[in-house]
Amino acid sequence: MFTELKREAYEANLALPQQGLINLTFGNASALDRARGVFAIKPSGVAYAALRPEDMVLVDLEGRVVEGTMRPSSDTPTHRRLYLGFNSVGGIVHTHSSHATSFAQAGRPIPIFGTTHADYFFGDVPVTRKMTPAEIGGAYEWETGNVILECFQSHGIDPLDSPGVLVNRHAPFTWGDTVARAVEVAVAVECVAQLALMSLQLEPDLSRIEPELLDKHFKRKHGAGAYYGQPGASSHG
Amino acid sequence: MFTELKREAYEANLALPQQGLINLTFGNASALDRARGVFAIKPSGVAYAALRPEDMVLVDLEGRVVEGTMRPSSDTPTHRRLYLGFNSVGGIVHTHSSHATSFAQAGRPIPIFGTTHADYFFGDVPVTRKMTPAEIGGAYEWETGNVILECFQSHGIDPLDSPGVLVNRHAPFTWGDTVARAVEVAVAVECVAQLALMSLQLEPDLSRIEPELLDKHFKRKHGAGAYYGQPGASSHG
Amino acid sequence: MFTELKREAYEANLALPQQGLINLTFGNASALDRARGVFAIKPSGVAYAALRPEDMVLVDLEGRVVEGTMRPSSDTPTHRRLYLGFNSVGGIVHTHSSHATSFAQAGRPIPIFGTTHADYFFGDVPVTRKMTPAEIGGAYEWETGNVILECFQSHGIDPLDSPGVLVNRHAPFTWGDTVARAVEVAVAVECVAQLALMSLQLEPDLSRIEPELLDKHFKRKHGAGAYYGQPGASSHG
Amino acid sequence: MFTELKREAYEANLALPQQGLINLTFGNASALDRARGVFAIKPSGVAYAALRPEDMVLVDLEGRVVEGTMRPSSDTPTHRRLYLGFNSVGGIVHTHSSHATSFAQAGRPIPIFGTTHADYFFGDVPVTRKMTPAEIGGAYEWETGNVILECFQSHGIDPLDSPGVLVNRHAPFTWGDTVARAVEVAVAVECVAQLALMSLQLEPDLSRIEPELLDKHFKRKHGAGAYYGQPGASSHG
Repeated sequence: MFTELKREAYEANLALPQQGLINLTFGNASALDRARGVFAIKPSGVAYAALRPEDMVLVDLEGRVVEGTMRPSSDTPTHRRLYLGFNSVGGIVHTHSSHATSFAQAGRPIPIFGTTHADYFFGDVPVTRKMTPAEIGGAYEWETGNVILECFQSHGIDPLDSPGVLVNRHAPFTWGDTVARAVEVAVAVECVAQLALMSLQLEPDLSRIEPELLDKHFKRKHGAGAYYGQPGASSHG
Repeated sequence: MFTELKREAYEANLALPQQGLINLTFGNASALDRARGVFAIKPSGVAYAALRPEDMVLVDLEGRVVEGTMRPSSDTPTHRRLYLGFNSVGGIVHTHSSHATSFAQAGRPIPIFGTTHADYFFGDVPVTRKMTPAEIGGAYEWETGNVILECFQSHGIDPLDSPGVLVNRHAPFTWGDTVARAVEVAVAVECVAQLALMSLQLEPDLSRIEPELLDKHFKRKHGAGAYYGQPGASSHG
Repeated sequence: MFTELKREAYEANLALPQQGLINLTFGNASALDRARGVFAIKPSGVAYAALRPEDMVLVDLEGRVVEGTMRPSSDTPTHRRLYLGFNSVGGIVHTHSSHATSFAQAGRPIPIFGTTHADYFFGDVPVTRKMTPAEIGGAYEWETGNVILECFQSHGIDPLDSPGVLVNRHAPFTWGDTVARAVEVAVAVECVAQLALMSLQLEPDLSRIEPELLDKHFKRKHGAGAYYGQPGASSHG
Repeated sequence: MFTELKREAYEANLALPQQGLINLTFGNASALDRARGVFAIKPSGVAYAALRPEDMVLVDLEGRVVEGTMRPSSDTPTHRRLYLGFNSVGGIVHTHSSHATSFAQAGRPIPIFGTTHADYFFGDVPVTRKMTPAEIGGAYEWETGNVILECFQSHGIDPLDSPGVLVNRHAPFTWGDTVARAVEVAVAVECVAQLALMSLQLEPDLSRIEPELLDKHFKRKHGAGAYYGQPGASSHG
């Protein structure tokens, strides 16, 4: 019944090392069937080269393993928390891609300096606050999801306007209506992090993109007035 | 009739991700048949892996789609504006290559520090002024072409001496007598941007190349006195 | 009798250039059979492309060549010293991977800034003191092992908590219960060195990771309370 | 008669883009038969993908083309000048590899910070003085060879102790007893340039390697006391 869902999650997981976003076993991707309340996610600590579609673990939104013989990714509670908090999200990706992770370690958002960034995000890629010792010592991965949600709520950011975040001291999470879209955003986040780092090396006090240009580029690709891509295709690509 | 033109444009578009100049669907290439006033350009938002020669869209210099079932690249008006303004140009390439885009985001020209750069450009790779809210809110992509033309006219730069430009806050455009040459210049722009960034890390106050050396290297490859390459070959290679 | 040991060492040596950790012939890997007191190591100065499993040289813990027609790696005494000093180690890797080597050349430990690092090391990747002229002029490679041991003893670091080190002015060594694990740690050391360098470019005065988060991530993967990976698998992967 | 010489030069030229040292058509390699006073060099401006062994141009030490239908590399006089000035050299390589070229553009030697560098160079990779307008306007490529020779003579550097140089504002040249060795040194120069740039980012005032350690590592691989590599093999590898 969930063959297709597992295949989507499998292909997204494979795409991560192919896109250069993953070293070793860092990172994972999941795909949600919201109608049935079930998502498919990578098993924990399995090498990408050995992964098969049928290895994907099915977990429901209450956190119970529905199908699969392996332990799901240790980050499963974070995925689950985000699916519960962000209603329009159908796929989630977590990587330790190098430039984005460097911003996360430094506790800094990725500042929006140009149109490449504005094609994907309607502002900075935000960074969460640091987690408290109580959150770290408690249900750590679930609390990771909570600090992400808090970040979006406290700053009034729409998760569709900013389809990703940096977890402080940790690394990026991205999402989309499908997991394939979440992978695409993960590539974009790494790309704009690299651009931002080098732009700052050239101009340490560089100001952010002008609001008119941000507006133009983001809306060229998103929402009712979008005219980028083919009419019959996804609203994104 | 335009089979060859579409193949040239197709091959140039494919070369962009192969050369590491393109992430996701950022970027596009077009090839012009100036005698017929028609150019072939990439369709908008189509993944490079899925592209076929027959997918190239034919557009005339008045901006009408002449052939093709897909929407042309959203940057088509910029290409058209440049073909109308630069008489000797037969191919145009747009990328978001990382080092060149970082200079564009920072609003800085790529300073000419060495002979690698002087083999392709007779001076800095220029950067346009920022676009005004009116230009952004109007025919944005056409106005992007206008600020490029203004940049060359106001500084008195010959587009053959400087076969490329950085659009402020955005990314590079390059050109040549053929689209294959425009791809080659796009590779060179990314290369010299990387060299310039690292040279500035070593010497933040580095002066530009001496005029005699610039003259020597540029003219070794360009113009009547060129002696680089093979006599029977293109004046560039 | 040592066919399997030689194959393990061979595969680890081959993995080094495949993982981008090795240029030219810099670097080597060895695998120990502690029960028999013998380790298999790369022959000195042989190109990776030409290497065969049967080329691995067998050396005992007294430093005598037990089997093999080629001279063992010039770094063999360093491997031997570490096997004698670190009882739980079954495999050792030496690379000149670029980011880690840059920290070594600068004489600085790799500071622990994030969870990627904490998944492998329970603190900074330490750096040894500089070697004295007497040590350099004496049994240099053996003394290299001695300064590594001294570094761990003088700082009271457990080699299982920090499965690698930077030799001052030189480059990293890593280890593990198996040589495959030592390769994995070598990849991780290069990765976290790159993250640390870029994090420092963003925040030159960046503080280290909070102790609770370090504890959580290291113990998620190591020791009795580990819950990362599959129950039946190695305690690491 | 020169079939083998042309094959050596051909393979060395092909190795340059394979090793990531070359973009576009920047760079060239040549191999000398000193007994016959003839060297084989890449034809000018030919793409690496199209190159065949029989395309190599044979030039004698007086600068006359002995065999070949294509124009030799425009840098041929520089190669010839170096072969005449450095008696023990049998192969020369020129690249625009990115990190080494950045030091050349900045007019700075590559400082010797660690053992990786000391395995190939007995000191900094030197940089020439800038060329004068008269030298640039005259026999430019021949004069490029002259400033390299002057650099070694005026500083009293032995070309075997320092098998490469940075030409100011330009890029590196490397050499060896064979052209294969010159390629290996070209890889090493790019590698140590990257290490040095990153070491300087970590420690802008970093001191050079201690003389004892330099001595140890250089002589471990070079000269009568060398013990690196296999006894039957080249004194280098």
